[in-house]
Amino acid sequence: MAQQQAQERNAISPRRAENFPEWYQAVVTAADLAENSDVRGCMVIKPWGYAIWELIQQQLDKKFKDTGHSNAYFPLFIPLSYLEKEAEHVAGFAKECAVVTHHRLEVGPDGKLRAASPLTEPLIVRPTSETIIGESYSRWVQSYRDLPILLNQWANVVRWEMRPRLFLRTAEFLWQEGHTAHETEQEAREETERMLGVYHEMMRYHLALDVVTGRKTASERFAGAVDTYCLEAMVQDRKAVQAGTSHFLGQNFAKASNIQYLSREGVKQHAWTTSWGVSTRLIGTLIMAHSDDDGLVLPPRVAPKHIVIIPVTPKEDTKAAVLEACDKLAERLRAQSFHGEAIRVQVDTREVTGGSKAWDWIKKGVPLRVEIGPRDIAGSAAMVARRDRPHKSRDLIAWDQLVADAPTILEDIQSTLLARNQAFRKENMVPMDDKDSFYKFFTPRNSGRPEIHGGFALAHWCGCPDVEEQIRKDLSVTIRCIPDDPAIAAEPGMCIFSGKESAQRVVFAKSY
Amino acid sequence: MAQQQAQERNAISPRRAENFPEWYQAVVTAADLAENSDVRGCMVIKPWGYAIWELIQQQLDKKFKDTGHSNAYFPLFIPLSYLEKEAEHVAGFAKECAVVTHHRLEVGPDGKLRAASPLTEPLIVRPTSETIIGESYSRWVQSYRDLPILLNQWANVVRWEMRPRLFLRTAEFLWQEGHTAHETEQEAREETERMLGVYHEMMRYHLALDVVTGRKTASERFAGAVDTYCLEAMVQDRKAVQAGTSHFLGQNFAKASNIQYLSREGVKQHAWTTSWGVSTRLIGTLIMAHSDDDGLVLPPRVAPKHIVIIPVTPKEDTKAAVLEACDKLAERLRAQSFHGEAIRVQVDTREVTGGSKAWDWIKKGVPLRVEIGPRDIAGSAAMVARRDRPHKSRDLIAWDQLVADAPTILEDIQSTLLARNQAFRKENMVPMDDKDSFYKFFTPRNSGRPEIHGGFALAHWCGCPDVEEQIRKDLSVTIRCIPDDPAIAAEPGMCIFSGKESAQRVVFAKSY
Repeated sequence: MAQQQAQERNAISPRRAENFPEWYQAVVTAADLAENSDVRGCMVIKPWGYAIWELIQQQLDKKFKDTGHSNAYFPLFIPLSYLEKEAEHVAGFAKECAVVTHHRLEVGPDGKLRAASPLTEPLIVRPTSETIIGESYSRWVQSYRDLPILLNQWANVVRWEMRPRLFLRTAEFLWQEGHTAHETEQEAREETERMLGVYHEMMRYHLALDVVTGRKTASERFAGAVDTYCLEAMVQDRKAVQAGTSHFLGQNFAKASNIQYLSREGVKQHAWTTSWGVSTRLIGTLIMAHSDDDGLVLPPRVAPKHIVIIPVTPKEDTKAAVLEACDKLAERLRAQSFHGEAIRVQVDTREVTGGSKAWDWIKKGVPLRVEIGPRDIAGSAAMVARRDRPHKSRDLIAWDQLVADAPTILEDIQSTLLARNQAFRKENMVPMDDKDSFYKFFTPRNSGRPEIHGGFALAHWCGCPDVEEQIRKDLSVTIRCIPDDPAIAAEPGMCIFSGKESAQRVVFAKSY
Repeated sequence: MAQQQAQERNAISPRRAENFPEWYQAVVTAADLAENSDVRGCMVIKPWGYAIWELIQQQLDKKFKDTGHSNAYFPLFIPLSYLEKEAEHVAGFAKECAVVTHHRLEVGPDGKLRAASPLTEPLIVRPTSETIIGESYSRWVQSYRDLPILLNQWANVVRWEMRPRLFLRTAEFLWQEGHTAHETEQEAREETERMLGVYHEMMRYHLALDVVTGRKTASERFAGAVDTYCLEAMVQDRKAVQAGTSHFLGQNFAKASNIQYLSREGVKQHAWTTSWGVSTRLIGTLIMAHSDDDGLVLPPRVAPKHIVIIPVTPKEDTKAAVLEACDKLAERLRAQSFHGEAIRVQVDTREVTGGSKAWDWIKKGVPLRVEIGPRDIAGSAAMVARRDRPHKSRDLIAWDQLVADAPTILEDIQSTLLARNQAFRKENMVPMDDKDSFYKFFTPRNSGRPEIHGGFALAHWCGCPDVEEQIRKDLSVTIRCIPDDPAIAAEPGMCIFSGKESAQRVVFAKSY
């Protein structure tokens, strides 16, 4: 099918197989999702892109609340001295902090505006909020009765990125960060895994991503964490995208922020904390995982519109009847529900040609396109096209049947996208049992293009950071995770690099 | 009633009549809404406060979408040079800008962290986004076909405040800012007034605030606007709170940002723009308008919980039956709806005494409290207390009746709060026909406490800024608005300060 399509007209140029990074940028532009701003590394999220984020937010927020969490809001600014409290943490973020040093502007001698009124202590624009939230928790927690604290924050954060890429890596991004404090290590570990599970379910059943979950190695851990759990998606150039993380912070941040409680035994103890987050990076992951050479392909659950109805009105005398039929069908479809919400339907009444309308919605990834022309009215039917199929593949469906079947069709598109991502991931996650094969797997094949490489390599590794570092230097390949799924990697073996013992295989890949 | 209560125990100290500003702070603390952080002027919004904000957001967001707007997101940072483009605008905000000057931290010779890597151009943390959004619009708009642009952004903004007060005036606050661009002046003016209308409806029917709407005088206008429309609430110390604004920006910002379009006649023209916003300040307004000496009083539409059910379990052997009855009643109440949403019910199963539970929910402003004890089970009834009535006023209501009547009772509380705010506003908005009375009206009476003053004075004013400035200096009283409601101030007259002609009365008041 991909070969057939290659001979046809495609909406996106270059195609995936030609230049994946440029294809990605072209899909973002064609779907009108976001663009770079003049402010270095900061993007503008346009309405269609933001609407996807709103759906992700609503669906995740419900899951957070269902698991006992509340939302709150903490300051944007972090005093320098807070960041310093956790040594690893500050080391991890110092190189990418936006620093506020003044709180006023004045006109200088050259007639130009300049910063004035220096702050006594510089403030960091939050790159993440463990330290500033820890300060509040240290005041809120006195006794074991004050625990657990289960909060989440929806916010913007800033990490000065040297090589920004829309959605995947931007200086400012939108995210949620959960921050919890617990009485015992076990509770905090359970929370870390619970939220990993919430993300896993979200990614699998809402975003149609067959992610691999597991722990990070020490070198890839969140700065200051004891354990970082992650969810790694495979996108269509077979690279990994870290789509979310859940951190078990042990007592590190509780000690740094002095979060102490009087235990049931009357002893002062440090709390055990966790943090977990996903960001607008999920949108970049979605795009790279599902989209095709005609543009964005959206899983229905996060599509701002499920169905677009395009009136085909070649003649003025039948136009009113066609528009009326479209509106009536839209109303009937809106009365149907998909995952507990009314189906989102738009009738595209813009004064442009039908063909150009259809392409606009193809590029924007709307799951179902429905065209109604004068001839369809007599038959009470419509031409229906699914975004998960080639753009020329269309079926004539009677209105009544379409109304009745719409939820099922959307569900089928949703599961088709997941099945495709899963098949692709399985096909390209390969056990590697010797170093030569491993190096070949990650070396560009039959082309000068570095994006053509193997995928995810499942290999035994002795646990030595030097081995890990050598591979990173040689191949720009890192250990994405130590997978927790026994079906993927349970049996012990021998490190293919050092020959030492290995408890289980780990996932190596190139990544965004 | 107020006198009776004064003899009784109250949850909040001091009472409103004793010290209004301290009472406000005490209500915020008692309801666990928010607190000051260590970061100067920045607050922490705690779960109960944030839940109110989420309800305001959801309800406003729906109104924005119903009026054709979409959400988008623009950068947090504004280059200094953008801000400079509109002279009045920069003059208005220069004194309260947080300035980012560096993008890295390093360890200095003293072993302490310090800012490193200076930016070539300093960045301002947005105090409002006209200039940064204008930059995008200038690229998006080419022809009249690209107009109107109707966008809104939910975001945090920073204005360095010298005298911060929780919710009402904080260095960082959460808000929404609408930004629209139009082909004609008339369309932009209509949009400005439409959004004023959306806010008016929100404040009146959701927040139970009988606000006065109108235009600002030149001295109180948004920096760079042609006309600023505002909504002024009267709170219980008879001061005004500006609860929202809608600005007609003319072509000022379009010229500054170069937003130009090719008109239907083929001529290059500058667009006409508007902006409008409300913020977390609405929560402060709510508190000051409705709360009483027992704590927060919430209009049901923005109450995180509509009903709390308190099990009264004096004996172990009847405890299970009571808890079961509470859960069953909660389920039945949740199946009822209030303004299209399921009634929000919480059963308070904490292990503390019933009395202390009741007081917690009184202080948090929950509209209905329902107590069920062992004796109520036989009668299938419950003691029900409304938060808009004195805390001792309770009625025994049969479960069936309570379930059936709950929506009506909540609606009655909602309209009672609006009626009270309206009666209070009417009582304390007084026509003033001479300067002496006006000065007396705003001078503390029978007490050394400056918060005891008249309220809103409706007086004729000639339009002269010097007169306005003199009054501000003498009394700390400003013109809150030139009201647009003919029922309030339509007829022409004579300025009570200068004796010159006046087209209509304006509203003078002290304000937050």
